[in-house]
Amino acid sequence: MRVSLGAITLVYPTPVFVVGSYDEAGRPNIMNAAWGGICSSKPPSVAVSIRPERHTHRGILKHHAFTISIPSAKYAREADYVGLHSGRDVDKFAMTGLTPVRSDLVAAPYVKEFPLVLECRLLNTLELGAHTQFVGEILDVKIAEGMLGDDHAPDIRKIDPILFSPSDRFYYRVGESVGKAFEMGKDALVPET
Amino acid sequence: MRVSLGAITLVYPTPVFVVGSYDEAGRPNIMNAAWGGICSSKPPSVAVSIRPERHTHRGILKHHAFTISIPSAKYAREADYVGLHSGRDVDKFAMTGLTPVRSDLVAAPYVKEFPLVLECRLLNTLELGAHTQFVGEILDVKIAEGMLGDDHAPDIRKIDPILFSPSDRFYYRVGESVGKAFEMGKDALVPET
Repeated sequence: MRVSLGAITLVYPTPVFVVGSYDEAGRPNIMNAAWGGICSSKPPSVAVSIRPERHTHRGILKHHAFTISIPSAKYAREADYVGLHSGRDVDKFAMTGLTPVRSDLVAAPYVKEFPLVLECRLLNTLELGAHTQFVGEILDVKIAEGMLGDDHAPDIRKIDPILFSPSDRFYYRVGESVGKAFEMGKDALVPET
Repeated sequence: MRVSLGAITLVYPTPVFVVGSYDEAGRPNIMNAAWGGICSSKPPSVAVSIRPERHTHRGILKHHAFTISIPSAKYAREADYVGLHSGRDVDKFAMTGLTPVRSDLVAAPYVKEFPLVLECRLLNTLELGAHTQFVGEILDVKIAEGMLGDDHAPDIRKIDPILFSPSDRFYYRVGESVGKAFEMGKDALVPET
């Protein structure tokens, strides 16, 4: 038996993207966005949806750039704070103790303390009702050196990213591995007849 | 010290969306997509990026509709299978033992065995290089009755969704709770001076 929940925005998981931009006055600002994800492999690009009334919205449009900093679980409070307050009213870096770093590649700041950052040039702006979707070309991904594994690849356990669950509105860590993608499903699951 | 990984498509987490559509011949088909996410609250909408060469691409364009079925961890193999094979060559429902259910609302099938499904009407099509981004208006979200908690809300523990990690290409379960969103970050984290 299936129950209808109506026309709601519910998927699992959604990300915790801390979106960095300079505002119209050039001040570094960050916000928390769960509506987004990778949207093309070539050019490598990421989409993030932001309401027009948000301070970040103007900053991205002015500077044609944004960053996405991915917080570790230990920074969940900081990530939540920057989603609840506006850069119009407070300096969110100062209020969280986080440190803005100016990207070398685009006119946007990222968060020094967070393990993984994407530096993006604004490619596309799509009006989707309550939200504007910003599509950014990923010019570089930078990782804190200590977050690499023995194979010199990003180690999800060290990065310790979080996800947002829209139903109960909790943040969660990544749990146990279920299997290898592009491999565990190679063969058909039912015997051929 | 920060290390540059180059212009790659790396965020954590990415979802495991099993996208359902009828193909041009009207046959039910499903594929696995990790590039996507919610993209607006009003109208409630979800974006999913699919390469033009995929069989699903044609199906969505023909029928102006798709579904997203969210697999539980126990269906990770099935979800992986439908990402590795083409509906041009095989009947992916038959090969996985999954059951197509025709949506009442749109011309697309969803997966009976998966706990959560979104039924979407195609709103927008955006060409983003290697991928086309399909934006769907979420007309309804349906959940298997047993996946509701005592409060009659969707229970993420029962649903047991998975995520995809693009760096190591593993699927993971959702782990421990880190805290309550829109609450844990209410107050500033550094004392005001």
